[in-house]
Amino acid sequence: MTPEEEQVLEANQHFYTALQKLSLEEMETVWLQEDWVRCVHPGWEILEGWEAIRGSWQQIFGSTQFMHIVMAVQSIRVENSLAWVCCTEKISSAAAGRFDSDFIQTTNIFKRQNGAWYLVHHHASSRPTSQAEEEKTELVQ
Amino acid sequence: MTPEEEQVLEANQHFYTALQKLSLEEMETVWLQEDWVRCVHPGWEILEGWEAIRGSWQQIFGSTQFMHIVMAVQSIRVENSLAWVCCTEKISSAAAGRFDSDFIQTTNIFKRQNGAWYLVHHHASSRPTSQAEEEKTELVQ
Repeated sequence: MTPEEEQVLEANQHFYTALQKLSLEEMETVWLQEDWVRCVHPGWEILEGWEAIRGSWQQIFGSTQFMHIVMAVQSIRVENSLAWVCCTEKISSAAAGRFDSDFIQTTNIFKRQNGAWYLVHHHASSRPTSQAEEEKTELVQ
Repeated sequence: MTPEEEQVLEANQHFYTALQKLSLEEMETVWLQEDWVRCVHPGWEILEGWEAIRGSWQQIFGSTQFMHIVMAVQSIRVENSLAWVCCTEKISSAAAGRFDSDFIQTTNIFKRQNGAWYLVHHHASSRPTSQAEEEKTELVQ
């Protein structure tokens, strides 16, 4: 792994740490705070610009009691001052007294600015899993 | 719009033309044929490398009678030799005698090589729509 890939993976890990800690303060240091950054939460409409994205994290963190994430990096690609990381996530969370477990597929794009890597695009969506498939089969039968 | 953005949008349109025409030949000219390119079809596991991605299009095109796509570009960002486009798609298709209509959210990443833009990452997932929301409400009630 190159030093640049290691830096990108650190920035990627920083995002998941902020997410698991439900920390808006840390999330603010992860993202490039520009109006052209974009975010797709699983099943949400796309969010355009840092203000809307910040608001979404505030809303998610405000309504979540806890979040536990098992994340695995599938691939990383660095091209000059841009990089993107593909991850899978298993998110266990409690919100409004309800426990949920979600399997997520994510594309995270990072941009290097002044020597640091910032998240500029997050696209997360539901992914198939053996468990999800089993539940689906149960519903269909 | 800059000339570069126009070129990226042309490459993006080229992808949707190949998709709608169910043309593997055209799809082969859209992608950078490298082992590090990635593709997430809605609800699929991630596909790693051009051979796997090519195989998926072959499978999709082989089992689809027709595909009609209404695509809208939500945003485009060019950073040197990389660019990414956010799109919504309404895909109406017929496969195995069944008619389907899907609402999709997509992130497409392009890389410029030898003066041309090639698709290097495609992440497509289901998106909420007023119609989908209505169906969901009906199911819940």
